[in-house]
Amino acid sequence: LESPSPAAGRHLTLPEGFRAAGVRCGLKQTGEDLALVAAEADVPAALLTTRNQVVGEPIKYCRSVLPRGCGRMRGIVINSGCSNVCTGPAGRKDAEEMARRAADRLQAAPERMLVASTGIIGHRLDMEKIRRGIDLAADELGTGNDDACARAILTTDTRIKTCVAIGELGGRAVTVAGIAKGSGMIAPSMATMISVLTTDATCRANVLRRCLREAADASFHAVTIDSDTSTSDTVAVFASGRAGNPSFAADSADGRRFAGLLRTVCEDLARQIAADGEGATRLVEVRVAGAHTPKQARIAAKAVADSPLVKCAIHGADPNWGRIAAALGKSAAKLDPDRLKIAIGGKTLLSGGRPRSFVAADVCEAMQREVVRIDCDLGCGEASYTALTCDLSREYIAINADYHT
Amino acid sequence: LESPSPAAGRHLTLPEGFRAAGVRCGLKQTGEDLALVAAEADVPAALLTTRNQVVGEPIKYCRSVLPRGCGRMRGIVINSGCSNVCTGPAGRKDAEEMARRAADRLQAAPERMLVASTGIIGHRLDMEKIRRGIDLAADELGTGNDDACARAILTTDTRIKTCVAIGELGGRAVTVAGIAKGSGMIAPSMATMISVLTTDATCRANVLRRCLREAADASFHAVTIDSDTSTSDTVAVFASGRAGNPSFAADSADGRRFAGLLRTVCEDLARQIAADGEGATRLVEVRVAGAHTPKQARIAAKAVADSPLVKCAIHGADPNWGRIAAALGKSAAKLDPDRLKIAIGGKTLLSGGRPRSFVAADVCEAMQREVVRIDCDLGCGEASYTALTCDLSREYIAINADYHT
Repeated sequence: LESPSPAAGRHLTLPEGFRAAGVRCGLKQTGEDLALVAAEADVPAALLTTRNQVVGEPIKYCRSVLPRGCGRMRGIVINSGCSNVCTGPAGRKDAEEMARRAADRLQAAPERMLVASTGIIGHRLDMEKIRRGIDLAADELGTGNDDACARAILTTDTRIKTCVAIGELGGRAVTVAGIAKGSGMIAPSMATMISVLTTDATCRANVLRRCLREAADASFHAVTIDSDTSTSDTVAVFASGRAGNPSFAADSADGRRFAGLLRTVCEDLARQIAADGEGATRLVEVRVAGAHTPKQARIAAKAVADSPLVKCAIHGADPNWGRIAAALGKSAAKLDPDRLKIAIGGKTLLSGGRPRSFVAADVCEAMQREVVRIDCDLGCGEASYTALTCDLSREYIAINADYHT
Repeated sequence: LESPSPAAGRHLTLPEGFRAAGVRCGLKQTGEDLALVAAEADVPAALLTTRNQVVGEPIKYCRSVLPRGCGRMRGIVINSGCSNVCTGPAGRKDAEEMARRAADRLQAAPERMLVASTGIIGHRLDMEKIRRGIDLAADELGTGNDDACARAILTTDTRIKTCVAIGELGGRAVTVAGIAKGSGMIAPSMATMISVLTTDATCRANVLRRCLREAADASFHAVTIDSDTSTSDTVAVFASGRAGNPSFAADSADGRRFAGLLRTVCEDLARQIAADGEGATRLVEVRVAGAHTPKQARIAAKAVADSPLVKCAIHGADPNWGRIAAALGKSAAKLDPDRLKIAIGGKTLLSGGRPRSFVAADVCEAMQREVVRIDCDLGCGEASYTALTCDLSREYIAINADYHT
């Protein structure tokens, strides 16, 4: 597969060897709030978790069962509505019990289940509801619709986020599928809030982890809704091997193909997360080129993507390139003010550090589209990076000022 | 003066040896938009300017006449409504002409005048209006009311920001007065948007600069409205020597007293800037203690003060300490999750990394006051820092999405 592209349907469509369920156990006000994704046997898996220093008990548990971030696992159980963060030893026991109960129902060893929780910080899980939910989900595995699983992990998201990509490895068709949640407290520094990826490829756990790291760098790590890295970011990938392709090394041709497939799914999910940021009306791509180093390109792109002034200007469809210039200039990334270039929607507004004349109505129109593209050139080198964000609207304030602890 | 406190009146009340004027020249839609502050002769002065890499032409000009940041100067001319940034050599000539015309009217040498501009980026100044404004301001010097000068430097600010403190040096009463503007694109990394300080103290220019640096670190540098460092931050101080106190070294007892006086005025102006941030309804003080180093304390305090989720929670009077914990944890400042402590309005919500029971109504009430205080202890050392910010409201979006280029 030369350039994999996500399948049109955007439905979960689990690869061979996996079953999933999403049920309501009553932690959220309405809708499904407990998801279970299970392989038929213990399979190679890899995990990335948040870099926040305050981490949830589920993440501490996952790190304890996968100390090197990869190994053979059966599946993952996820609840929304309560993140089980800052809950201490009692919260840790709750996370362990979630894993154990799900493992029991799947006839797996307890340490083969991953756990993730998302929602309010500082509250204990209602374990009676969780237990009931796990039993219900285990009963429904593979019988319900896949969307219920993608729905059960959402919090303030307005729509489910799923992606499937199909490629070929060693003459065999291979599928990679993923679900994700995003919306608020999104500036992942290891992964997004929560994403679960499944594939029928044959792939060793350590190769899986290396591919996942690369895919996350180009996708989830590029997203910033509000610069607030969560305490619960988790992305897990499981590989059932049911495609029957021969095993491959990370740096082989098949390894590059598989990594590309995984990156395609992660990039598509990351774009869905950015487009559905809290209060978002538009997806914003900030591409910075001409940076001295890749790290400086990332810093500059994130400075623009995190600027509330830039995000308000996009919401108002105002071609205010001055705010973009100021955001680039305040960042730690080196720029040459006399070679600085800024374009919005393909229209150049600043080049050689000087304003260019433009038709405001044309740029306004480009800024009202579903996807707004900002291109910047720092004039200092060859490195580039693309950050993903959304506009900043009154709705963001409504969601986050009216939401109560 | 052991603990100087700002005078009650909060009016500009220029110290002896200075005159000021604020007039309307027509750059803004309404109100005064050109300010002139002038000493009777060339006097010791010091200057701090933005660390943004994209800097306005007025700042480039000021740096050229004061390459070491201090020297003998006559005064400063400031316009609002247009920042003269990204305007190239033509913009540089405009800045020079502003200085020259003001100097001519004061019978000073052209290189003795400082210039500052604030407002939209990327537009040329309307020099016909500027010339008329300078002539008008020179005619009105000392005859109008001082508030007009403080008003003429404002952009989206809703009120003037002035402060006066009085102390004693070498047996003489000494006055320090200041005006400032803030409101949007405020995360000063050298100074605030614009502030002009005047004193009748006798003080050498290099001592003045050292005192100004220290005062700015404890005041303007602690403010963040929206994390967007401006291209035009400027703070200037002038010392007329009319108080007649003996000259002093920076590290003498008088030096410490004078530095304290200057810091008092800067801190008070910084609090006024934070309280009048775009869309602000409350001033928020984020005090971080228990940090490993002073730099880490600052990083942690700024991470909380810059978190849109925390600022929305304050706007909604929601005691959502989880967002504060997440903001501290994502920062580069080291913290001990098991010793972390968070209090809002003096009420402890988290200690030893565990939630404490609290009466939500009490904390809500504390969060609806004019000043909301957040105390955090990272449990890692002795260093502390206090950052200043405001809440994040729908009005911020309205101001910045509806404002058009």
